[in-house]
Amino acid sequence: MFAKEKKFSHYKDQVNHHLDSILPALTGGKPQSLYAPIRYAMEGNGKRLRPVLLLLTCESLAGPIEAALPAAAAVELMHNFTLVHDDIMDNDDTRRGRPTVHRQWDKEAALLAGDGLLALAYRCLLGARSSRTPRMAQIFTDGIIEICEGQALDRDFEQRDDVTMADYLEMIMKKTARLLSICTEIGALIADAGETQISLFRRFGEHLGLAFQIQDDLLDITSSQEILGKDFGSDVKRRKRTFLYVHVTTHGSREHRDALKKIFSKPAVAPQDILSAQQIFKAAGALAAAETAAAAHLRKALACLSRLEPAAATEDLREFIDMLLQRKA
Amino acid sequence: MFAKEKKFSHYKDQVNHHLDSILPALTGGKPQSLYAPIRYAMEGNGKRLRPVLLLLTCESLAGPIEAALPAAAAVELMHNFTLVHDDIMDNDDTRRGRPTVHRQWDKEAALLAGDGLLALAYRCLLGARSSRTPRMAQIFTDGIIEICEGQALDRDFEQRDDVTMADYLEMIMKKTARLLSICTEIGALIADAGETQISLFRRFGEHLGLAFQIQDDLLDITSSQEILGKDFGSDVKRRKRTFLYVHVTTHGSREHRDALKKIFSKPAVAPQDILSAQQIFKAAGALAAAETAAAAHLRKALACLSRLEPAAATEDLREFIDMLLQRKA
Repeated sequence: MFAKEKKFSHYKDQVNHHLDSILPALTGGKPQSLYAPIRYAMEGNGKRLRPVLLLLTCESLAGPIEAALPAAAAVELMHNFTLVHDDIMDNDDTRRGRPTVHRQWDKEAALLAGDGLLALAYRCLLGARSSRTPRMAQIFTDGIIEICEGQALDRDFEQRDDVTMADYLEMIMKKTARLLSICTEIGALIADAGETQISLFRRFGEHLGLAFQIQDDLLDITSSQEILGKDFGSDVKRRKRTFLYVHVTTHGSREHRDALKKIFSKPAVAPQDILSAQQIFKAAGALAAAETAAAAHLRKALACLSRLEPAAATEDLREFIDMLLQRKA
Repeated sequence: MFAKEKKFSHYKDQVNHHLDSILPALTGGKPQSLYAPIRYAMEGNGKRLRPVLLLLTCESLAGPIEAALPAAAAVELMHNFTLVHDDIMDNDDTRRGRPTVHRQWDKEAALLAGDGLLALAYRCLLGARSSRTPRMAQIFTDGIIEICEGQALDRDFEQRDDVTMADYLEMIMKKTARLLSICTEIGALIADAGETQISLFRRFGEHLGLAFQIQDDLLDITSSQEILGKDFGSDVKRRKRTFLYVHVTTHGSREHRDALKKIFSKPAVAPQDILSAQQIFKAAGALAAAETAAAAHLRKALACLSRLEPAAATEDLREFIDMLLQRKA
C-alpha cells in the first residue's frame, strides 16, 4: 500500500466499520433470496471512495464525522445499487474480481437486490433525522434521477455514430460526476455549511468526477489488467463511446476515424483490435487530449477548494484526490 | 360504469389530472430512452386505486385533498416501479391489455425505467415539504423494503412445496397489503391525524390489502378474461402459491393434494389443467375458504373504520372498498 492510500485507509475503515455495524440489522432478516445478494454486493473489496469523499468534505468544514456516517453508508449502498443494475444491463460477468450478482445468482435476483439496495440507502439517509435531512434526501433523489439519465445516455451512445464531446461530457456528468457531487454536497450540508460553500463543494465534486471518468477511460487502454481489476480494453470490447473514441471521431483524421469505426462495428472485437484501437488513440492524439482534459478538470476542482479556504481545511481532500487520480502509479 | 365506480371516478380524475400536470415536467426531458418507457408505464389504463385510497383516507379526516396529491402521485409512481420490475422477473408479456414495458422496449430499458419511476416517486413525495414529510418518507421507504421482501418470498415459494398459510399471509402482507397501508397511513399523516388514528388506518390498509389479494387469487380462477384483464388461470400457469393452492396443500385430502401438485409440477400447463385445478379448488373447499378469509379481513378492516368514527367520516371509504371488493360483479 502506498503512503497516501494508507493515510485514507483510516477513513475507509471507519466506513467499513459503520457498514459492518448496520448491515446485519439492515440485511439480517428474511428472505435470504433478497438479502444474501445484497450482502454479497456490499462485501466486495470496494474502495469506498464515495463515502470517504463525503466524510473528508464534512471534516474539512469541521463537521462531525459521526453524524456523517449514515449518509456515507447511504451513498455506498446507492452506488452499489447502480453497479448491480448496470452489470445486468451490460451483461458483465465480473466485478472487483468476483462474479457479478446476476452471475452468482440470476438476473431476477440481482434486479430485486438492486431495488433493495436503493431502498436501504434511503433508510440510512432518512434515519439521520437532522433538520437538513429533507434537503439531503432531495439532493440524493435528484442525483439518482440524473444517474439513470446518464446510464440511458451511455446505452444510447453505443448505438450512435454521431456522439459529440458535449454529449459525452453531459453523459459522464450525470453518470459518474453527479454521484461525487452528491457526496461533497451532502458532506457540506452535514457540516452545516453556508450556501456559497455548498455550491463550491458541488462544483468541486462535479469537476473531480469528470476528471475521474476521463482518466478511467484513459486507464482502460493504457493500464494493465492487474491494476484495473477488469479486462484491458473492456471499453473497446463493449463499444463504449469514451473520451478517446469521441476525440478520434470528432477530431481525428479521416483515416483514423474510419479505422476506429471499423473496429467498433465488428461483430466481435479480438485482442488485436484492442491493440489497433490503442494505436489509433495514440496517433490521433486522443491519449494526450484525455490527459489534458482530466488535468483541466482537476485544476477546476482544486480552484473550488482554494476558494473555500480558509473556511475549509482542504489539505486532506487535496491529498485524497491526488491519490484518487494517481491510480496508474 | 357502475354507480359506485362513477362516484369514485371523480377522485381518479383528480389523480390523473395531477399526474398529467406533473409528468411532463418529470418526464419531458431527455433521454427519451429513459422517459418514453416511464410515460408508457404511467399511461396504461390504471385504476389508480392506491392514490384514490390515499385521498379518501385524507378526506375522511377532513384533511386537504390538494396537499395529498403529491403523495398520491408518489404511491402511483412507486406502484408502477414494482409492476415494471415484477413483469421483467415474471417474464410477463401483457399488462392492462398492452405489451409490458420490457416487451415494448427491452429488459434493459424496462429495468432502468423502473429505477427512474422509483426515483421520481421520491421526488414527488419529498417535494411536499410538510413538517411530516420525513416521517412519510420513512413509511414509504420501509414499505418499499417490505415489498421487495414480499416479491422475493413470492419467487421463493414457486420453488417450494411446503408453503404454509402463515407463509402465504406473510408474503401477501408484504407484497400487496403493505402498499395499501402506506396509502392509508400517509393519507392520515397528511390530515394531521393523531397516533391512534394513524395506527388504526395502518391496520385498516393491511386488512383491506389482505382481503384484496385473497380475492384476487380467487378471481384468477373464477372470473373471465374480460373482467380480469389478464389470462384466466394465470396463477396456475405461473405455479403461484396462492391462497387456493396453499389451502389445498395444507387442508386438502391426499387425493386433492397429489392431483394439484401433479398439475403444478408439469413442464407446461395446458388449458385442461387449469380446469382440473379449478375443480380441485372447488372440491377441496379452497374457493369457499378464500371467500371466508377475504370476508374476515374485510370485517377487520371495517372494524378499524368503526373505531375511527366519529373523528373520521368513513362513509366514502366504506363505499370505496365495497366497490373494490365487488370486482367480480
